[in-house]
Amino acid sequence: MASTSLGDFLNTARIQVDEALDRYLPRPPVCPAIVSDAMRYSVFAGGKRLRPILTLAAADAVERANVRHRPSGAGEATLLALPAACAIEMIHTYSLIHDDLPAMDNDTLRRGRPTLHVVYGDGIAILAGDGLHAEAFTLLAREPASGDHEIVSRKLRVLRVIGDAAGPAGMVGGQAIDLQAAGQAPGRAITLDGQGLRAMHARKTGALIRASAVSGAIMAGATTDIINAIDRYATDVGLAFQIVDDILDVEGKAEQLGKTAGKDAADAKPTYPSLFGLETSRTLAAECVARARQTLVDAMVTDGWLDAIAEWVVVRRS
Amino acid sequence: MASTSLGDFLNTARIQVDEALDRYLPRPPVCPAIVSDAMRYSVFAGGKRLRPILTLAAADAVERANVRHRPSGAGEATLLALPAACAIEMIHTYSLIHDDLPAMDNDTLRRGRPTLHVVYGDGIAILAGDGLHAEAFTLLAREPASGDHEIVSRKLRVLRVIGDAAGPAGMVGGQAIDLQAAGQAPGRAITLDGQGLRAMHARKTGALIRASAVSGAIMAGATTDIINAIDRYATDVGLAFQIVDDILDVEGKAEQLGKTAGKDAADAKPTYPSLFGLETSRTLAAECVARARQTLVDAMVTDGWLDAIAEWVVVRRS
Repeated sequence: MASTSLGDFLNTARIQVDEALDRYLPRPPVCPAIVSDAMRYSVFAGGKRLRPILTLAAADAVERANVRHRPSGAGEATLLALPAACAIEMIHTYSLIHDDLPAMDNDTLRRGRPTLHVVYGDGIAILAGDGLHAEAFTLLAREPASGDHEIVSRKLRVLRVIGDAAGPAGMVGGQAIDLQAAGQAPGRAITLDGQGLRAMHARKTGALIRASAVSGAIMAGATTDIINAIDRYATDVGLAFQIVDDILDVEGKAEQLGKTAGKDAADAKPTYPSLFGLETSRTLAAECVARARQTLVDAMVTDGWLDAIAEWVVVRRS
Repeated sequence: MASTSLGDFLNTARIQVDEALDRYLPRPPVCPAIVSDAMRYSVFAGGKRLRPILTLAAADAVERANVRHRPSGAGEATLLALPAACAIEMIHTYSLIHDDLPAMDNDTLRRGRPTLHVVYGDGIAILAGDGLHAEAFTLLAREPASGDHEIVSRKLRVLRVIGDAAGPAGMVGGQAIDLQAAGQAPGRAITLDGQGLRAMHARKTGALIRASAVSGAIMAGATTDIINAIDRYATDVGLAFQIVDDILDVEGKAEQLGKTAGKDAADAKPTYPSLFGLETSRTLAAECVARARQTLVDAMVTDGWLDAIAEWVVVRRS
């Protein structure tokens, strides 16, 4: 990827991911049209593609660090990481579909469009989510197609990393805690303090964001030290992303965000601004980004777009 | 497995599967208690374990066929296949949890107990299903732990087989067609004739039952010919199982089945008895079983319990 600016890189990566998603998602007669249509409605709803972009950017950064020593094969790493990038976006999309359901957050609007269950009904929405979930893992097991033992080992490692991040220990567990905090689970509603909020988000959004970057590094053949550094980087970027999401929810207008702004406050959900105030929340996000950037310097993974992505996460307006 | 009767084999296999499921399912502090509790409520609800039993029986049968030539290592194949057996049971359980939701079949009773969403609410039930779904694939990528290239290749192949069977092309697609037939999807309700009913079940229940047996054969190192034979066997066994399920629903009493008998008829869902009558349905099931048994003879996979399992599927009373 010979991008000359972050905007250029983001555009190229988004197109690459969208084209691959279109290619990977099954169509009739392989699957019923209603499942294919419903999955595509949500997958191509205009998401930011933060997670797959992190995967490709991490793979690219690791390759650039390696290329200093081994000048051949530039650009190969992002192709190796593309299936993982798409699988993670499928999992992220399934989680949005399920979270939007009336039984969970009951959101009727996302990115300016009616949510999937509003259009297709709750039953098909649950199934479209389940379909994307299964398809993500099938894709990881299938692509990149290679009998090479090294690539096969990387694929299995990525499968475990993404599975752990998506499952009960990660995203699913975080959403369950969120439901408990909202009083939507049996027993008395749990109350989240700052530490509890952070622990909830570490599971609900942080785990998959970390897995996104780590998967790219693994597919690019990074050493354990580099993988760990990319993981720390993504932990901070993920936290900053969540804090900024909370801030935008308070500040945002419905038109700009394409979802009902101020919804968290209306639901009395704990957020960073509600627990720490807007100013402290902004400081916290900035500290995360500074730490993430320092991690890249310390690990000498400075070539590529990871640094610029960390900055973008806090300056974005939607 | 030195079982001397089918009952003995089924008991031994069920205990082996239940113990492994208990070991594999995450607990706090790895995941929140409510997710762990909800997943276990449904996984240990007294299922027949048909699918994992097929996995272990297929692995055992392939090993016995191989052992004629290679007398060492007996029993190893079922251990290699145990993670796949458990992963399939997790996927089956997640599908029951989601199918029982008010947005789908709206069942409040299963195996004599309240369904998960009745006890934990719809939100946690959706998440427990999602958690089992993710955990199944993570388990397949993790176990059996081996860096051996041959075992790793088998694991990836099993991942693809199970993922395809569970996803939009298989189980999820079949349930979507079922919802469409019940008028619970956008547009006009589709009408299923005999062929349509069979195609729906081939996806909804048939695909995962086939994957169960095929996974066992793959993990045991079967040749392509034997894998294909096991697949044909399981296709017939799966169809017979579904027809008998429909017959039991008509004949059964609520106490005996532990779910509301006659529910299919009350929902005006198409079933084998409603389309073909009881007698013809019984004949169809018997023909499937005869074909399945002949497949085993032709493939010379006659040692072990696959033959007896095919018979059991039609004589069972619940």
